[in-house]
Amino acid sequence: MTTIPPSHPRYLSLKTREQIAQGMKQGIVHETGLIAHGRGEAFDYLLGEATHPQAEAASKVAAAALLTAAHPVISVNGNVAALAADSCIHLAHSIPAHLEVNLFHRTLERMEKITALLQSKGAQTVYGLAADERIPGLDHDRALCEKNGIFSADVVLVPLEDGDRCQALCAMGKTVITIDLNPLSRTAQTATITIVDNVIRALPGLQQWVVALNDTPRSDLAQMLQSWDNTHNLKTMLSFLSKRLNSLG
Amino acid sequence: MTTIPPSHPRYLSLKTREQIAQGMKQGIVHETGLIAHGRGEAFDYLLGEATHPQAEAASKVAAAALLTAAHPVISVNGNVAALAADSCIHLAHSIPAHLEVNLFHRTLERMEKITALLQSKGAQTVYGLAADERIPGLDHDRALCEKNGIFSADVVLVPLEDGDRCQALCAMGKTVITIDLNPLSRTAQTATITIVDNVIRALPGLQQWVVALNDTPRSDLAQMLQSWDNTHNLKTMLSFLSKRLNSLG
Repeated sequence: MTTIPPSHPRYLSLKTREQIAQGMKQGIVHETGLIAHGRGEAFDYLLGEATHPQAEAASKVAAAALLTAAHPVISVNGNVAALAADSCIHLAHSIPAHLEVNLFHRTLERMEKITALLQSKGAQTVYGLAADERIPGLDHDRALCEKNGIFSADVVLVPLEDGDRCQALCAMGKTVITIDLNPLSRTAQTATITIVDNVIRALPGLQQWVVALNDTPRSDLAQMLQSWDNTHNLKTMLSFLSKRLNSLG
Repeated sequence: MTTIPPSHPRYLSLKTREQIAQGMKQGIVHETGLIAHGRGEAFDYLLGEATHPQAEAASKVAAAALLTAAHPVISVNGNVAALAADSCIHLAHSIPAHLEVNLFHRTLERMEKITALLQSKGAQTVYGLAADERIPGLDHDRALCEKNGIFSADVVLVPLEDGDRCQALCAMGKTVITIDLNPLSRTAQTATITIVDNVIRALPGLQQWVVALNDTPRSDLAQMLQSWDNTHNLKTMLSFLSKRLNSLG
């Protein structure tokens, strides 16, 4: 791996890019994952590479949804595994929730590599490899999931998710939480709760909310979730981005 | 190559993505080129994947600069070769200008592959492989160029260029034309003329301007170039993007 000095002004962005490139070389990240990462970089740049109040608000309510869930599942794809495997495992442990490896470009090799990576980092149950169900309304292998995992989950966290899949999970009646840097993406627009932030900042942030809200009465958390207005939150995020674009000129 | 039906609403974007991914598999595109392509996709999405009046204006004056140049050179990197090799060759022929392969992550193998690709598509002189000069102020192999090519050019077209290199070329006193989807990038902000557009639309558009202006008196073209305000053009582009972001919410 190229050594990037921590003093470099673009250190974190370059290190993250390096992790994704390494992930591809290791067979964890699909090549289209690199292109998707680039799209994210562009939006993160517009965000000033910072977590905004809108993302904080979404993270708080996402934590409430995960804590009140009967069967919460965290979906892990190639980019998420390359960038934030540890954060996913810690988050799953805190809630507690299960992990499921869930790939858009599914191959047995990538499924096994990502599962092994999560297990080597201490993950207990990792669903996905033994897929025995399909998400209704999706064709190809991207529909595959596990009956005891995503298929039967009431709340799913799907960071960096495809738009079609996000819609299909919502259509199953699940509470769908996503982390997506593009507030205009179909995933961002379709999910129940959209955290517009970089996964490397958002997942630890979400974990902090899970810890902070752990002692809150479940009825208060349920109320928080019920009054969440995702559309409004996305609109204020877009308005911020719009102003920032103008100010940068 | 995956077959994408031309009727797909995202046909052109998906086909372009496929070309970049193929380019990487063929050893023409560096892995960071995929990430850069993703950043471009995000900005192209914000542009509505259309060529705007600001890009047209920049293309027109870029054509004037290329037609009045004593020694114009078109720089070709991995992404440009994968996406628009034919357009570069046609443009070079129309001006006429020379081509130079110019890589940020320079390896002999990629240099040879891209040179061979351009030659197989009919390019005559292709500079770059026999690099015998350095762009002052740049370290590593990214400084390498040919004395009879980019080094001695008065006008260079550097589509999808790195910010450092763009600055270094400007510092050499050259007229630097770039094509960059991100109006905020250092390259976009530093170049003499910035065409904020996708290379697959901008290069054929630039060629049309070269043909259209070919009979215009050279003094008129020089006047056009002299009165060009790149900063103002970028500001109006940003203002458009800002309004569009708000309207999409």
